Amino acid sequence: MISSPLRLGIAGLGTVGAGVVRLLHDHADLLKTRTGRLLQVVAVSARDRTRDRGIDVTGLTWYDNALDLVKDPNVDVVVELIGGSEGVARALVETALKAGKPVVTANKALIALHGYELAALSADNRAPLLFEAAVAGGIPAIKTVREGLAADRLLRIGGILNGTCNHILTVMRKTGQEFAAVLKEVQDLGYAEADPSTDIDGLDAAHKLTILAGLAFGCPVVFDSVYVEGIRHIAAQDHIFAQRLGYRIKLLGIASKIHVGIQARVTPCLVPQYAPIAQVDGVFNAVVAEGEFVGRMMIEGRGAGAGPTASAIAADLVDIARGHAMTLWGVHSEVPKPVRACSISTGESAFYLRLQVEDRPGVIADITAILRDCGISLQSMLQYPAEKEVVSCVPLVLVTHRTSEAAMQTAINQIGALSVVADTPVMIRIETT
Amino acid sequence: MISSPLRLGIAGLGTVGAGVVRLLHDHADLLKTRTGRLLQVVAVSARDRTRDRGIDVTGLTWYDNALDLVKDPNVDVVVELIGGSEGVARALVETALKAGKPVVTANKALIALHGYELAALSADNRAPLLFEAAVAGGIPAIKTVREGLAADRLLRIGGILNGTCNHILTVMRKTGQEFAAVLKEVQDLGYAEADPSTDIDGLDAAHKLTILAGLAFGCPVVFDSVYVEGIRHIAAQDHIFAQRLGYRIKLLGIASKIHVGIQARVTPCLVPQYAPIAQVDGVFNAVVAEGEFVGRMMIEGRGAGAGPTASAIAADLVDIARGHAMTLWGVHSEVPKPVRACSISTGESAFYLRLQVEDRPGVIADITAILRDCGISLQSMLQYPAEKEVVSCVPLVLVTHRTSEAAMQTAINQIGALSVVADTPVMIRIETT
Repeated sequence: MISSPLRLGIAGLGTVGAGVVRLLHDHADLLKTRTGRLLQVVAVSARDRTRDRGIDVTGLTWYDNALDLVKDPNVDVVVELIGGSEGVARALVETALKAGKPVVTANKALIALHGYELAALSADNRAPLLFEAAVAGGIPAIKTVREGLAADRLLRIGGILNGTCNHILTVMRKTGQEFAAVLKEVQDLGYAEADPSTDIDGLDAAHKLTILAGLAFGCPVVFDSVYVEGIRHIAAQDHIFAQRLGYRIKLLGIASKIHVGIQARVTPCLVPQYAPIAQVDGVFNAVVAEGEFVGRMMIEGRGAGAGPTASAIAADLVDIARGHAMTLWGVHSEVPKPVRACSISTGESAFYLRLQVEDRPGVIADITAILRDCGISLQSMLQYPAEKEVVSCVPLVLVTHRTSEAAMQTAINQIGALSVVADTPVMIRIETT
Repeated sequence: MISSPLRLGIAGLGTVGAGVVRLLHDHADLLKTRTGRLLQVVAVSARDRTRDRGIDVTGLTWYDNALDLVKDPNVDVVVELIGGSEGVARALVETALKAGKPVVTANKALIALHGYELAALSADNRAPLLFEAAVAGGIPAIKTVREGLAADRLLRIGGILNGTCNHILTVMRKTGQEFAAVLKEVQDLGYAEADPSTDIDGLDAAHKLTILAGLAFGCPVVFDSVYVEGIRHIAAQDHIFAQRLGYRIKLLGIASKIHVGIQARVTPCLVPQYAPIAQVDGVFNAVVAEGEFVGRMMIEGRGAGAGPTASAIAADLVDIARGHAMTLWGVHSEVPKPVRACSISTGESAFYLRLQVEDRPGVIADITAILRDCGISLQSMLQYPAEKEVVSCVPLVLVTHRTSEAAMQTAINQIGALSVVADTPVMIRIETT
């Protein structure tokens, strides 16, 4: 029975770092019962030594330079909570792995962008790199994919991976407000960053999807090959039309195995309003996995926040203390080479298309002729009178049957160029499967 | 790098056993990549050697007596798929553990009833006993609780743990049919056993809840101390009334930590119709966990069937091959002693009460007087005219505020004894939290 303490050095004492220190303190006995070892913070590094973080740092060695944590012979495991895919965070993780010290991180950008090199470093130095907190906060999504579903061949992985976007879309749907107004509200409440683009332009979700896809399919996916759309272009009326058509709008990251490779995209989607994923509202995240034997399963919970994130980080520490740390991509063979996701144009989907069109004869004939020429068949069409009295344009909503992305792109370009079509057409993919 | 095959002996070749053999065959390369070892079936045991199971058993050693699997020096791991808490299944698991051979089982009754003794045997002989498939089929519920949430203190665990009951309740709600008719339909389709009592009287769910509670709270819960109600008494009109009140009826297993100990019960419950768990319909299972730091999370998927169960069993084999097998209750200290769940009478809840009452003056006064005297306050009351024309009794539905189980039991006994109340009152707990 191992009984020496597992001594931790924590770099970054923001909300999450402070949460980890608090959890390790509050649950010290519990963790010792579950692992047989004391999980003990011995050193920390952060910028401001004087800030009150609501935690007691007395007796801990303080390093102004995070890299010094690695050199401290009393530090067995480095916890990286600085963030960012480059700079200090990357240097710290690489230095720790080279020194053979296990690393736990919540850094999704780092793993998404440098997962291949880090897996190699981790393997070469036999130092595990764990990152449960990088995807979907407190939900053990990574453990579920890499271990819980390890015996099955996964066909599809993804879900609602960004709580800020999901919260904004939920508020838009429930209140009828426009995107900009809700974003401002959410920023004022501190739920979104001052520069919200990482969240609302889909990058954060894409980081997480890249990680999930790499785990599900056993090889790192090149981040730049993941197709990404955000939610800025979704209007209040899209929620109304979606609802009338029996759908809700969610920002989904979806990766799937197809015969020519891997597809991976983050896009707003219409999902059937009674689908389990349609019920996941607000800041909650949900990860859906589909395997040959296991069928479809979904796991949902809080995707962010100090408590859930601390729980995930500490669960990684428990795995290390138990001697159960995994290889980065969950494979035992040599470190798998990165693969590029297929171009979005190889995909297919059903589509929702909202146009602002002039309210005069022949418009629908022109538009449907283009769709016909592109080989796209319509499933339904909604036309409503203008909501204000003095407007020359009315919204026209088209729902297509399943068709290729390439055909749809051609059609949209042609439709958008019609003189009777005002504004850029809004296209949202429909996920019914 | 370990490269010797992990050699398996499988006892029981029913649907699940055949599914395991098929998965290990179909995914052999995948499993080798993920574990570094070949997962190889070398021996099997089942009753009928001649039956066509759709799998190739050529080259496998066949044992008529399952216990002989343990003695086979070529068998490294025993997979027990015979079932039942006693008899051959129990003897096989005990014999294998005593011989120091790891065991994987899907046997919920065995773990629920003998978890304490088996944990001791497993620890004494350093032979892991894994049982992911025992709870919620393909959903990695056990891994989620024992590892994914291992760093948090869990306050509550449970969910929809029996797919047959959930399917019956779903069909009743959607079609308006009575319980007996739906049960017969489900039996004819082969979704329920000829003797369905293990499912519909709540025992199967109670087995699973006992296991989840033991993992969540780190000690085995005495099975007989879990309070169990089935779904036989739920009538078609209960679904109608529930819907009018904004609820759905689900059979839930719920265990929670309270100041005096652990509460554990399996009962039909009214849940708010928009709650995530209310959306889990048909044969799907859902496990909800609530922790101090992680908040609430839910995991849902197929709770039974050859494919999902085989995936869970093989995931346990992957853990063994990776050298990651856990102690039975997830604790590293000495084997935890069993604890009894508190009596149901110590609990509290809001209640739905449906009475058949005579349609004449004074009845409601009598009933509400009893509730008042028991200190129970009403939240709402529904009274509808009789649905058929010539009946002397009408249904009366009462919804109480949160009150103690003991007070409610007293009130029900008194109300049931009133001469104006026909039939036994139907009481269903309301779970809003």
